[in-house]
Amino acid sequence: MQRYQDSQLYRIRHSTAHVMAQAVLEKFPEAKIAIGPPIEDGFYYDFDLPRPLTEEDQVEIEKRMREIIREGHEFIRREVSAKEARALFKGQPYKLELIDGLERGGVDEYGEKTDEPVVISTYRQDTFEDLCRGPHVANTREINPDAINITFKAPAGAYWRGDENREMLTRIYGTAWQTPEQLAEYLELLEEAKKRDHRRIGQEIGLFTFSQLVGKGLPLWKPKGAVLRDLLERFLRDVQLSRGYEPILTPHIARVRLFETSGHYPYYKDSQYSPFEVEGELFMLKPMNCPHHIQIYKDELRSYRDLPVRYAEFGTVYRYEKSGELHGLTRVRGFTQDDAHIFCTPEQLEEEFLKVADLVEFILNSVGLTDFRARVGIRDPESDKYVGEDEGWEHATQAIIACADKRGLDYTVEEGEAAFYGPKLDYIIRDALKREWQISTIQVDYNLPARFELEYVGEDNERHRPIMIHRALYGSMERFVAVMIEHFAGAFPAWLSPVQVVMIPVADRHLDYAREVAAQLRDAGLRVEVDDSAGRMGGKIRSATTQKIPWMLIVGDRDIEKSAVSVRLRSGEDLGAMHVADFITQASHIVETKALQLA
Amino acid sequence: MQRYQDSQLYRIRHSTAHVMAQAVLEKFPEAKIAIGPPIEDGFYYDFDLPRPLTEEDQVEIEKRMREIIREGHEFIRREVSAKEARALFKGQPYKLELIDGLERGGVDEYGEKTDEPVVISTYRQDTFEDLCRGPHVANTREINPDAINITFKAPAGAYWRGDENREMLTRIYGTAWQTPEQLAEYLELLEEAKKRDHRRIGQEIGLFTFSQLVGKGLPLWKPKGAVLRDLLERFLRDVQLSRGYEPILTPHIARVRLFETSGHYPYYKDSQYSPFEVEGELFMLKPMNCPHHIQIYKDELRSYRDLPVRYAEFGTVYRYEKSGELHGLTRVRGFTQDDAHIFCTPEQLEEEFLKVADLVEFILNSVGLTDFRARVGIRDPESDKYVGEDEGWEHATQAIIACADKRGLDYTVEEGEAAFYGPKLDYIIRDALKREWQISTIQVDYNLPARFELEYVGEDNERHRPIMIHRALYGSMERFVAVMIEHFAGAFPAWLSPVQVVMIPVADRHLDYAREVAAQLRDAGLRVEVDDSAGRMGGKIRSATTQKIPWMLIVGDRDIEKSAVSVRLRSGEDLGAMHVADFITQASHIVETKALQLA
Repeated sequence: MQRYQDSQLYRIRHSTAHVMAQAVLEKFPEAKIAIGPPIEDGFYYDFDLPRPLTEEDQVEIEKRMREIIREGHEFIRREVSAKEARALFKGQPYKLELIDGLERGGVDEYGEKTDEPVVISTYRQDTFEDLCRGPHVANTREINPDAINITFKAPAGAYWRGDENREMLTRIYGTAWQTPEQLAEYLELLEEAKKRDHRRIGQEIGLFTFSQLVGKGLPLWKPKGAVLRDLLERFLRDVQLSRGYEPILTPHIARVRLFETSGHYPYYKDSQYSPFEVEGELFMLKPMNCPHHIQIYKDELRSYRDLPVRYAEFGTVYRYEKSGELHGLTRVRGFTQDDAHIFCTPEQLEEEFLKVADLVEFILNSVGLTDFRARVGIRDPESDKYVGEDEGWEHATQAIIACADKRGLDYTVEEGEAAFYGPKLDYIIRDALKREWQISTIQVDYNLPARFELEYVGEDNERHRPIMIHRALYGSMERFVAVMIEHFAGAFPAWLSPVQVVMIPVADRHLDYAREVAAQLRDAGLRVEVDDSAGRMGGKIRSATTQKIPWMLIVGDRDIEKSAVSVRLRSGEDLGAMHVADFITQASHIVETKALQLA
Repeated sequence: MQRYQDSQLYRIRHSTAHVMAQAVLEKFPEAKIAIGPPIEDGFYYDFDLPRPLTEEDQVEIEKRMREIIREGHEFIRREVSAKEARALFKGQPYKLELIDGLERGGVDEYGEKTDEPVVISTYRQDTFEDLCRGPHVANTREINPDAINITFKAPAGAYWRGDENREMLTRIYGTAWQTPEQLAEYLELLEEAKKRDHRRIGQEIGLFTFSQLVGKGLPLWKPKGAVLRDLLERFLRDVQLSRGYEPILTPHIARVRLFETSGHYPYYKDSQYSPFEVEGELFMLKPMNCPHHIQIYKDELRSYRDLPVRYAEFGTVYRYEKSGELHGLTRVRGFTQDDAHIFCTPEQLEEEFLKVADLVEFILNSVGLTDFRARVGIRDPESDKYVGEDEGWEHATQAIIACADKRGLDYTVEEGEAAFYGPKLDYIIRDALKREWQISTIQVDYNLPARFELEYVGEDNERHRPIMIHRALYGSMERFVAVMIEHFAGAFPAWLSPVQVVMIPVADRHLDYAREVAAQLRDAGLRVEVDDSAGRMGGKIRSATTQKIPWMLIVGDRDIEKSAVSVRLRSGEDLGAMHVADFITQASHIVETKALQLA
């Protein structure tokens, strides 16, 4: 499979970013330009502008971009010395700062850290020359002027280098496609994605919130969100128990020494919270659970008869993310992993891997994420960043590919996608909008067992080293719930709906009956609310629809007469009147079978 | 009820500590003396000794103590200036350090912080004079020489001032009672308590462990312990749901600002972990959950129709404890509270309080802690440390006492036992050894609603302030499990046993049948293990007995013939052979009814 970075679309977007910068500079000659990379579905460019942009500006800039494109300019690359570069970007302080970094080495032209040797190069089209590594299209004619678009998204600002203490710049986003049809489809998708934004729906349903006083990126789960998480966790917990996993519980902090031993510290230093001292020892919030689980493995002498040992924990970890990069539940500073570690013998590896893959697919299908593909991440044969013996890598890679084949997975093998400690299998789901999310991961690890000197006594009475499998099915509970919200647009399958039924009395005199029915439903194990608020029936139906409650049971005089309820679905579909007992039978069946449909 | 500090027993123990110090100094004139306070069931004294103590020393010191006691010396108090005190304790560096503290003020003669004005006083009996605030008995004759005892407990050492960087001292523990019978009873209890020590049993059953690399006071829950905790948590979670509580989930860290607003910081500064910085903001591990829960309450505008709001979370909090004070699961640095906060109107207070009390008693009885008393903690009328209006205090105190009366509780009303923010009701259980443990607490709070400016819109359409009830039933899950272990000596009721049944084949050829039966039991919802280890039947029975597994099902040829199992209880009782189906019926009934007995 071609990497995005090697695609024509990537070059088109990169080049369109330069065209946009040219158009902006023509309009605001005093503007300072920062950086303008391609991103997942388009590109952006950051500017220091003399005034805020208006909708008229947008129209004008887009128009000028189309002209430049149609003029058919070539993209011309040249390499320059730092001195030449400084002369070229005189008066452009952000570029000058980047040139400093390039000259010192270790950062690329976007200010990001890099190990690659940096050559200072520029690309020019027409009158605009930019500090750039490329690649670009050969000529602006490769861009389709009717398949581009720019937007001022809110928040339209971004800090220079993502640093809150630096200048706030104006970020203009844009996108470019190969045909106008693709652009239209993308814009429609954006519109639909906006409606499904988990931050909006999460608030409407009352799933979670944030608090200034608690801190950015630290979600607080409100009752309905906590119920949803508990349903997901209990389900997995019970399935895991039946499949030979054992639950464990470990603290959220540990001595820095633990992470020095594991090698995570200082490797992950930038994404960890700073340590704090207790009686002369340094402690820190755990950024991962593995070293803790290993301590429990090491607490006993293990025999080959005890293996595989499968430890599972819903472990909350804390990692530092820049505030500018936080986003709802998908980028947070604290999240709970459905983490498990399997300690097994080399002979058990293939079977264990298969079992985990079976579990992953069972869970994904159960929660309604039925459209997925897989990616086998193997070593980049040219890199030396990997630890462990070739033999182990070979064995594990074969085991993973055999597993993918046996399970008939739609998978790709991707070089360089392995973890540095071993190969892995990732599951990537496609949501209702065909967007891809990497969710589940199964990873083989030779590194930690060696670093912690893990052992078991083999049948030969000798000490051997076990292999570890790391696996997470939901991944992060926070991110997973975000994906579920966006996939279902908040309308979760009934078995996962925090509230399954809402009772809506036609008038106040029907409230007692509504409560009676609610009690019956509760006894049958359904999660029910009675809307006894002061409002009118229409408003209550609207509110329940917004909250995506599967079943609204409207009760009036005629329902009471017949011990019935009038059933309305969140889709608006009217199922008519039904005897209470019949509704209970139908709804319970849908819940118990984890059905995706309500009728 | 008389406070321990005011009792004759307290004075006897304090005086016996001085007698012991005299005996030790006579034997080791070069010894340096530190401090020697009375403690719960006795006293200790810390010494800097020229050599380790032997059992002979113990006999000799005890003998000399009895002589001193029989000689009938008076305890004579005098007040001295700092200068006189220094002259008196010349050559006693620990005492000199304490005198420095007393002179500076703010610390008492045990080196603990105090707000009381400090007068330097000494007590002398016979040849021994000690820096001491008292109180003491008038004459050593008030001590019964046949009701004292000293021990060198392991670890026999203690750091000076509990500071790891200071001198390691020899701590000699002792106890004193009013009659030899009381002493004998106490020593028997100690012996029994040692057998029930949760640290020992916790290790034998495999409930939890600790790791040097993770850090002191941070328990790691092994699979059986995690299963036990999950059983306790799920039980309470479900009961809470049925009683109108809503689950929430909040992060383990927050900005220091949150705790400054709540007033916890810097009030609890000594028991909190030090803050760490994130993007210029100070964060800390949460020492309590209340401020987080309040943020969720504040996330919406509340109407009187929404109240009471009852938020529950199994919230893990972190508090700093000196390493010298850590003890198994009862004194730890991180623990999980079954915390809930109820936000209600003043009119709802009494009814809510009653409901919580009903829940507390239901839970305590369900888990088998059926012997408890209660304590109503009210204001000390002479102190000014309490916040809030008299009217509120009066109202809440009446509500609590009315509740205790209505529920027919065995309770005492204790002045000065209220929290600074409101009165409370504590439940104190008596375990199998008649030791008391404060477990559950229900507290009324006027303070946090004011500090966070909580509101609800009343029926009158005006803004009002809700009252908060804090409550924990298990208290700390860690400490609760410790109490359960010691109360049941590890032999939990069947419904709480991590493993309920172990299958023991008489010989290897019975293993398949054992596995078949295990599968049947699992289908019936029982937690079963098959002991397929290499050992012999006798060893397997001993191992299951040590692990306090309720039912051992031994299977041999005759059992297979009759589709039966031979049932043995962990007590050693033999119930004979039983059809598998009959065993399932009996065991399931015992589990479902949460019975304390197994037959």
